Amino acid sequence: MSEPIDPAVVDYVGDLADKARVASRRLALMSRAEKDAALLRLADAVDAATPAILEANAEDLERGRTTGMPESLQDRLRLDADRVAAVAQALRDVAALPDPVGEIVRGSTLANGLQIRQVRVPMGVIGMIYEARPNVTVDAAGLALKSGNAVLLRGGSAAASSNHALVEAMRTSLDRQGLPADAITLLEQGGHDAGRALMTARGRVDLVIPRGGAALIQTVVRESTVPVIETGIGVCHVYVDRSADLGKAERITVNAKTHRPSVCNAAESLIVHRDVAPDFLPKVLTDLAAAGVRLHVAPEVRPYAEAAGAAYDVAAETDFGTEWLGLELSVAVVDSIDEAMDRIRRYGSGHTEAIVTEDRAAARRFTAEVDAAAVMVNASTRFTDGGEFGFGAEIGISTQKLHARGPMALPELTTTKWIVEGDGHIR
Amino acid sequence: MSEPIDPAVVDYVGDLADKARVASRRLALMSRAEKDAALLRLADAVDAATPAILEANAEDLERGRTTGMPESLQDRLRLDADRVAAVAQALRDVAALPDPVGEIVRGSTLANGLQIRQVRVPMGVIGMIYEARPNVTVDAAGLALKSGNAVLLRGGSAAASSNHALVEAMRTSLDRQGLPADAITLLEQGGHDAGRALMTARGRVDLVIPRGGAALIQTVVRESTVPVIETGIGVCHVYVDRSADLGKAERITVNAKTHRPSVCNAAESLIVHRDVAPDFLPKVLTDLAAAGVRLHVAPEVRPYAEAAGAAYDVAAETDFGTEWLGLELSVAVVDSIDEAMDRIRRYGSGHTEAIVTEDRAAARRFTAEVDAAAVMVNASTRFTDGGEFGFGAEIGISTQKLHARGPMALPELTTTKWIVEGDGHIR
Repeated sequence: MSEPIDPAVVDYVGDLADKARVASRRLALMSRAEKDAALLRLADAVDAATPAILEANAEDLERGRTTGMPESLQDRLRLDADRVAAVAQALRDVAALPDPVGEIVRGSTLANGLQIRQVRVPMGVIGMIYEARPNVTVDAAGLALKSGNAVLLRGGSAAASSNHALVEAMRTSLDRQGLPADAITLLEQGGHDAGRALMTARGRVDLVIPRGGAALIQTVVRESTVPVIETGIGVCHVYVDRSADLGKAERITVNAKTHRPSVCNAAESLIVHRDVAPDFLPKVLTDLAAAGVRLHVAPEVRPYAEAAGAAYDVAAETDFGTEWLGLELSVAVVDSIDEAMDRIRRYGSGHTEAIVTEDRAAARRFTAEVDAAAVMVNASTRFTDGGEFGFGAEIGISTQKLHARGPMALPELTTTKWIVEGDGHIR
Repeated sequence: MSEPIDPAVVDYVGDLADKARVASRRLALMSRAEKDAALLRLADAVDAATPAILEANAEDLERGRTTGMPESLQDRLRLDADRVAAVAQALRDVAALPDPVGEIVRGSTLANGLQIRQVRVPMGVIGMIYEARPNVTVDAAGLALKSGNAVLLRGGSAAASSNHALVEAMRTSLDRQGLPADAITLLEQGGHDAGRALMTARGRVDLVIPRGGAALIQTVVRESTVPVIETGIGVCHVYVDRSADLGKAERITVNAKTHRPSVCNAAESLIVHRDVAPDFLPKVLTDLAAAGVRLHVAPEVRPYAEAAGAAYDVAAETDFGTEWLGLELSVAVVDSIDEAMDRIRRYGSGHTEAIVTEDRAAARRFTAEVDAAAVMVNASTRFTDGGEFGFGAEIGISTQKLHARGPMALPELTTTKWIVEGDGHIR
């Protein structure tokens, strides 16, 4: 068990959570029209605050440079006028989405005349714990507001100034609109303990969503007493079946690995059926080598990697369960779809698994038996995404089974309430 | 933090969880017809095992008597031929319910031609931690099997012999049917630590549902690293509005308190608007006194309680948040619906809250603003129940907001999976 949380930080977070709770009651009763109008004004406020936001961002970048932040992280942190405009536009996009609140999920009139209906309602207070990218601050605030929730944001310290400027712009706008500024709150004090206080504020916070690396998510899952939606660890496989169209398999493998290697729906492991390995591996490994992908190969794949001129090593067992999040890929050969599915069970993270096959029976078995948030047939793992699925927004990709699984958008930020109307009914 | 869990018990539970996982793969692929046939044969097996079950139950009762178990608990534990027949019949009732697995929740064809669908699938391995009543053992096993899940049952030690006999009958039947007996597993060793090992078997158990008293549920919520659905703490209020039909209010209050006082949807607190208190309280308190209800009253209710000849005391602050689970009721008077909703916010547990009113505006505000799993207008709190709602079964009543809220039946024991079909699609 970890160190106790600083009681002053517990009080600080608890106090802000209680203020957010009060704000959430107002949000829960706002109509769609009121919420959409508020979002559009928040977008304008972010636009108008661009100079202050860029100045704050420059401070974060400067601090990053002096503390030796890697160039790739600096890039994720960096804002410019276009990126701020995109952040503001995201709020307008959320305004255009349907409101999940008030949707009747099911309902009926019972035999005794009682009318029952299950209605979508906001969660209440949502905590977000996340890392570097400042756009998450605004995305989360917009999705929370649209779904009628107050949000407590605990961003990474690397983006502290940027997040402060973005949240200040939004809070000032809420205040000017006569809406509670506490609907959007940034936890700026307490350091690491603020996140821990947030995830243990049971009864005061309704849901915590961690977004970030494996270490962050594991900490939240282990320590949280508030309900959590686990997001985003993706050890995704592409399995090339004996009946695959090898042209499709090549395109899908290269796309799944190289289109955007740093994200959770990128492929981390390639599994090839032995019958097609001699035809398929030379082509695909040459493509991957050309794209700069480093291979971690099973011993029997070694000659192919060698011949393709790829950078490679012989994989250790643990390499097959590794989320590379970069231009690296493990490669194995199997004798059967069963062996492929065994590997996926052992090494996969339940995010996205793809099969490439023209065989109906193989596709049917793979989609039925593989236990993951998304199972793809003849499509790149990269399609597991709220935007691609047509949700219009995404707050994360759930890899757990409770409440939400796969890309999460507005409906996943709500719960339901049963409303029962009678006329003096008793049992 | 509590004592470490005995490593031998962790291994024992982990091993059974892994066997349940293997069984769950078979269950996930069974058709509705196969599952229903299996449930009917389980019912026959329980019927056929009646003598052994009654003998085992007699052992539990004997042990209970010698250890001074209260008569009310002995009654909950007691089985007779009729109760065993009812337990078996419950399995047949579950067979008759629709299968949630395979239901397509939503789906579409994207602009790029990708076909996506979100399909209900089993959770996998479900853990149940519960107390005395042996019928829960069979109900949980039946609901788990129907929803394609393997179940690990950790029942109360008071019912150990009864649970053993019931589970043995079901496992033997599964084995004879050529189905994996490990689909239904009773954790019989390890004492208290078995439950703790179950709730920390993250990755091996997909969901834990505690059913029992507040202490059990709080322990699970605090210690569990496996996702939990919190069930059944009910501090339910009946609010009698100034515009109430006092006849309805009287019937509803008496029903909500006395129909079955030991359950979570019974009323624990009565709130009366000041304008109707002089008319309403004399009648309802007389009824409640006649039904043997002890009152815990706000000071201004005291004269009414006195006049009604009720057993009463002046309530302490904590009495208003108490789940009496018996013939006791707290009573308060308020000046407005706002004050009533404030009290519900402060003292309620988010289970079921009822308003009695003929005023449309009051009903509208109460249903919109009260944050609970179920909100009743002119109906008894006792209606929050899977059976009453027409679900045909109930595995518990969720008082949390994630995944399931209110009565839980078969669909709540499932998760979903996205199936995406393409033809070589890449991003």
